[in-house]
Amino acid sequence: MTDNANGMSSKDYYFDSYAHFGIHEEMLKDEVRTNSYRLSIIQNKHLFKDKIVLDVGCGTGILSMFAAKAGAKHVYGIDMSNIIGQAKTIVKDNGLSDQITLIQGKMEDVELPVDKVDIIISEWMGYFLLYESMLDTVLVARDKYLAPGGLIFPDKATIYITAIEDAEYREEKIGFWDNVYGFNYSSLKALALKEPLVDTVDVNSVVTEPVALIDFDLYTVKKEDLTFDRPFELQARRNDFIHGFLAWFDIGFTCCHKPIYFTTGPHAKYTHWKQTVFYTPSTIALEQGAKIAGHLSCAPTVANPRDLDITIGYEYFDVHSQQTSKEEVTYRMN
Amino acid sequence: MTDNANGMSSKDYYFDSYAHFGIHEEMLKDEVRTNSYRLSIIQNKHLFKDKIVLDVGCGTGILSMFAAKAGAKHVYGIDMSNIIGQAKTIVKDNGLSDQITLIQGKMEDVELPVDKVDIIISEWMGYFLLYESMLDTVLVARDKYLAPGGLIFPDKATIYITAIEDAEYREEKIGFWDNVYGFNYSSLKALALKEPLVDTVDVNSVVTEPVALIDFDLYTVKKEDLTFDRPFELQARRNDFIHGFLAWFDIGFTCCHKPIYFTTGPHAKYTHWKQTVFYTPSTIALEQGAKIAGHLSCAPTVANPRDLDITIGYEYFDVHSQQTSKEEVTYRMN
Repeated sequence: MTDNANGMSSKDYYFDSYAHFGIHEEMLKDEVRTNSYRLSIIQNKHLFKDKIVLDVGCGTGILSMFAAKAGAKHVYGIDMSNIIGQAKTIVKDNGLSDQITLIQGKMEDVELPVDKVDIIISEWMGYFLLYESMLDTVLVARDKYLAPGGLIFPDKATIYITAIEDAEYREEKIGFWDNVYGFNYSSLKALALKEPLVDTVDVNSVVTEPVALIDFDLYTVKKEDLTFDRPFELQARRNDFIHGFLAWFDIGFTCCHKPIYFTTGPHAKYTHWKQTVFYTPSTIALEQGAKIAGHLSCAPTVANPRDLDITIGYEYFDVHSQQTSKEEVTYRMN
Repeated sequence: MTDNANGMSSKDYYFDSYAHFGIHEEMLKDEVRTNSYRLSIIQNKHLFKDKIVLDVGCGTGILSMFAAKAGAKHVYGIDMSNIIGQAKTIVKDNGLSDQITLIQGKMEDVELPVDKVDIIISEWMGYFLLYESMLDTVLVARDKYLAPGGLIFPDKATIYITAIEDAEYREEKIGFWDNVYGFNYSSLKALALKEPLVDTVDVNSVVTEPVALIDFDLYTVKKEDLTFDRPFELQARRNDFIHGFLAWFDIGFTCCHKPIYFTTGPHAKYTHWKQTVFYTPSTIALEQGAKIAGHLSCAPTVANPRDLDITIGYEYFDVHSQQTSKEEVTYRMN
């Protein structure tokens, strides 16, 4: 924001502050997401009454306001982004300024006026749960501020994996480069393959029984646990071809009177997280009951810790060649 | 790109170079766009044979390769982006490296090995034609390099405007903020209104006869012409309500043997430019044959010349109050 001779700074501020607003609109309109938080907070006034609450990455302040309405004594909302300016106006317009304090800054640097908080609420999840996620920031907040016996909303996260038939879209995303208006663009195929695709997948594309790859317990998980390598085994529900792996996550608020869960999987209602597709270099022919044994490792990239390197290695018995085949691909989310 | 102890620099390069590739994929898959260029070049070999061609903002090199196939003596493709590395591989894979020279850099700074070129080809158009467009770069190239009598592909661009009925989506985009899970977010309404919306609009939403707002002739237009203020008059085709103005553009390649045009309007096939909606603060009730008189001004913003300030002022006779109403809104595309 540059002040200028036309006195446009405040107008510029308004414009700029809306520029990156689309993501907040998308998140608020994601009813699976927002209603899960709303219910887990509003239905559990017995947990929030007279409590000190910390909202990590508060955005427009919606979770802070849910907590205030649920009877919290005071809510501290922290966000690095300029959105905090809008959040302050919104909180004021809803008459909650006395109950909610909003602070712009990094969680790591901010000094709260209290030593400990009773509850941490945060919507920190990214694509594939961990891509550009704020989980590490939530862990910083937990270790610094959460009182012994304090609560975290949500407190459970699980990544699932399965294998899918996706011939048509794979052709559109990967095969397309073989012939681009008569030209050979195949040098881009390898790049396209290594880019996980965030998209919604039809549940009928799912060929193998989904399995939980990894669980995170927000009370105990450490930053180093976010770098992991986990085995999986997928069994085919039917004879079909496999063109890629599919991952998604479930989220749980288990300290609620009635635990609340939501899923971002292909079997449930749309969320803005969609699912994540990892195309395989080869098409795999699987017979009903046959298995793919594999592992998935995930780590922040060296160059940019907000990016993820995800390696999927797997082996399967190829029914046509009657041989065991092995492949491994490193994908990058960036 | 940081070299590191793991020797990952070339791998990192590959990954990074795909990261922003989505826009190139989207543009290539826009068949209205790419086929218009393809036909205007490939069908006009008589214009390209043995000519020196400059491709401004060449991206993956598709237009350069069309020109080479059309018989150009040599093509120079210029692009600021790292995509030029991929473009070089693609051009090589298609056996056109001798005919096409690709140079990474700003048009303003690059020194071509020739004094003049016979033809400039460029796909420079942005949303609302001018948002984040490269037209000013094309004009630099024209003034510096185009030989007298040289050709420009495309050479015509026209912005159209009309008024639309769009109650449902306006409610979703603007009205939404009145009640967000029971909270008053109305402070965001004014911001949401001032943000033009790039989206596809059903042709049945169009209430008034579209009119051409401004024409650009690529041979004569100057940079200062891209800041303009133009009047318009829109006449209602039917009794209906107006919730916003709608703009789009047409593009022409008029030096072709048979001139080629394409439109990005709501009456034609989808393009990735879609259309641009400017919601009005009030809903306007128009009777068939009634007119809205207005003007639209457009200028790069002071703070960031890649952004646009677009002001639309208009007046109309309100059939219910039997009075003339006037409104003016400044929108910002950023």
